[in-house]
Amino acid sequence: MSDPGGFTIDEAVGVTAARGFTAGAATCGIKASGKSDVAVLVCEREAAAAAVFTSNRVVGAPVQVSREHLAGRRTMRGVVASSGNSNVCTGAEGVANAREMARLAAEAAGCEAEAMLVASTGIIGRRLPMDRVREGVRAACAALAAGPEADVAFAEAILTTDTVRKQAGLHLEIGGRTVTLGGATKGVGMISPNMATTLSFLTTDAAVEAGTLRAMLRRAVDRTYNCLTVDGHESTSDTMALLASGLAMAGADPIREGTAEAEAFEAALVALCADLAYRIAADAEGGTKVVEVRVTGAATDEEAGRAARAIANSPLVKCAFFGEDPNWGRITSAAGMAGISSGAETMRLAMGDVVIFESGAPVQADASAVAAVMAAPDIAVHLDLGAGRGEARVLTCDLSYDYVKINAEYTT
Amino acid sequence: MSDPGGFTIDEAVGVTAARGFTAGAATCGIKASGKSDVAVLVCEREAAAAAVFTSNRVVGAPVQVSREHLAGRRTMRGVVASSGNSNVCTGAEGVANAREMARLAAEAAGCEAEAMLVASTGIIGRRLPMDRVREGVRAACAALAAGPEADVAFAEAILTTDTVRKQAGLHLEIGGRTVTLGGATKGVGMISPNMATTLSFLTTDAAVEAGTLRAMLRRAVDRTYNCLTVDGHESTSDTMALLASGLAMAGADPIREGTAEAEAFEAALVALCADLAYRIAADAEGGTKVVEVRVTGAATDEEAGRAARAIANSPLVKCAFFGEDPNWGRITSAAGMAGISSGAETMRLAMGDVVIFESGAPVQADASAVAAVMAAPDIAVHLDLGAGRGEARVLTCDLSYDYVKINAEYTT
Repeated sequence: MSDPGGFTIDEAVGVTAARGFTAGAATCGIKASGKSDVAVLVCEREAAAAAVFTSNRVVGAPVQVSREHLAGRRTMRGVVASSGNSNVCTGAEGVANAREMARLAAEAAGCEAEAMLVASTGIIGRRLPMDRVREGVRAACAALAAGPEADVAFAEAILTTDTVRKQAGLHLEIGGRTVTLGGATKGVGMISPNMATTLSFLTTDAAVEAGTLRAMLRRAVDRTYNCLTVDGHESTSDTMALLASGLAMAGADPIREGTAEAEAFEAALVALCADLAYRIAADAEGGTKVVEVRVTGAATDEEAGRAARAIANSPLVKCAFFGEDPNWGRITSAAGMAGISSGAETMRLAMGDVVIFESGAPVQADASAVAAVMAAPDIAVHLDLGAGRGEARVLTCDLSYDYVKINAEYTT
Repeated sequence: MSDPGGFTIDEAVGVTAARGFTAGAATCGIKASGKSDVAVLVCEREAAAAAVFTSNRVVGAPVQVSREHLAGRRTMRGVVASSGNSNVCTGAEGVANAREMARLAAEAAGCEAEAMLVASTGIIGRRLPMDRVREGVRAACAALAAGPEADVAFAEAILTTDTVRKQAGLHLEIGGRTVTLGGATKGVGMISPNMATTLSFLTTDAAVEAGTLRAMLRRAVDRTYNCLTVDGHESTSDTMALLASGLAMAGADPIREGTAEAEAFEAALVALCADLAYRIAADAEGGTKVVEVRVTGAATDEEAGRAARAIANSPLVKCAFFGEDPNWGRITSAAGMAGISSGAETMRLAMGDVVIFESGAPVQADASAVAAVMAAPDIAVHLDLGAGRGEARVLTCDLSYDYVKINAEYTT
């Protein structure tokens, strides 16, 4: 990090690396596996807060409560999360339970309940076992600490069927001061049987004006998490929250939109969100490959996005990737059904660096070069529509026997 | 068929059952399997003609040529089709080959080339082996005949990876005369490796005014084929054509919009299209169950359609059906992500006759009754959104290991 503005993403940097944050976790028995299932994150002071939630009309009680809490405030003090039960479709009792989780964590943090965000992930439609959850929240609060162990404990307690924990962060110089941005996330699609949901929690000790923070998070999520699809099934509990303590920039003006500092911070935020989103694609249920679908040459960015999403969500395309088959007919026809304004005549498709389709007809490409691209764990697909300057990227995975197994053999 | 207007769908009634039609098939070697691969259908006189084609922007040469031919005419004389190679993404040569197929069939029928529709289905991106195809079209024309054997020969020659032939028809009384409506179709989704496409050919000896015929076919397809999804991947070659010879109504005025005859004929047409579409869902690649998703109580029909399609295309929902899991969380959340105006609070979900979710929460349903519904080969899902009077139906299938196997193990 010799150059100001430069940064390296480091998976040893977690949610308590930024100054002012502590985290704690506990095992209260929501999960049958006996793994940790309650996580609490607290900032020692009011932190500028930004959060985005699922746009699904069927939303969990924790999302309802978090939205309410955030609507009335520009700062928050922390997050309380549980895993193994998403508290979705649980009626008024579910909402009361989410409120109680916030209140219990707030008592430990010494703040009002409305200063806590709430998130739950796991099975849909079951009541939270509140006797256990109460104990769990108290135990997690009693364990609040900063440092690598606390980071890992927090990152693990939010997982459901994830096979690896997903944590990353970075250090960045802004105005001569080193600020830290760290995060933890979970999710493997709307994965396993009702065990849906993506959760992401980011912390920073940069000082960022709250409106700026919200705008930055919205843009970063649009460019990263919102370009991620495992199975095209949007969860009921998706939550991403970013808390900024400001403690690395004491005495300095908070970062505001339109400044060089804002640009540097936002670039780091986008990079971190992209890194965390990649970790979700790489751990996708049944997935054996991460596929980046890039569409360029569209009439508009929106058209490029539709085409990229149609390709990334096509079960035929995803099965072809699993089979390491460079099936250009499926890819071009998926784009063709996405309401695009051009046809095959102007399309150009490359797998990795190898062009396999151009001007409406297949190209005689080096078969061994194509096979090498398809055999790799990461595949870059680039479809140019040849019709304009719109572009988009979507990150996805393949569709394997294990996806079917995981999602068919589980019974509610 | 005691009551006028009543009819029974009969799979022994094929494309030559209506008066005036002959069909022929041949094996020319497009398919490696050695099965028949060229089919010709001819009407002895100019037949009122209606056809609908894929809306994919990537379309096959036969679709381009058929659209051209149909644009300038109200009547047609027949159809020439090949299977095993879809003649898609084959450039100017592909278009020339499709035109030559039409010309060869037209010579045998004694009409101009523009009076023939052309359709091909099979692998994308390969040149038609025209030496063989020329021989095949000539042989199929030499075999033109009417009767059950010709019906079956035609229905078989349009198949690709279909496991069963798909033929059905009916007899109907209109104005004291018995008219016949018969058809053949193929398709198992955008199924096997680039072996896409749905083709459907219907014949009738009713006399129907051409504009009325086109309007009726458009409406029938909207209510049947366009409500069918196997994998959400629209093919490049979808074609449905309906030819009306009028020979059962000699001397009578052709059927026109707004009359009782039109209503009776359209009801029969819709029923036949629904029957043929069901045969495709039942033979879907890897499918073990046919699932009818009905959404009611939406703000608009369009909203209901979006929700039904989101449910029917969700890989999570489809895997749950394969696993016989009444996973209401996946179904309600799939509807929730479809841009609907209501939430879970007002939803009511039944599997078969058993309500399992109501007013935002699961219902304690009889587990053995639900298990019996899920174990059946046909499952009816009914989601009422509780918000209006809009409704829609979509027919689909489950997602099994075999779907992945078929679509991953094949290599282009």
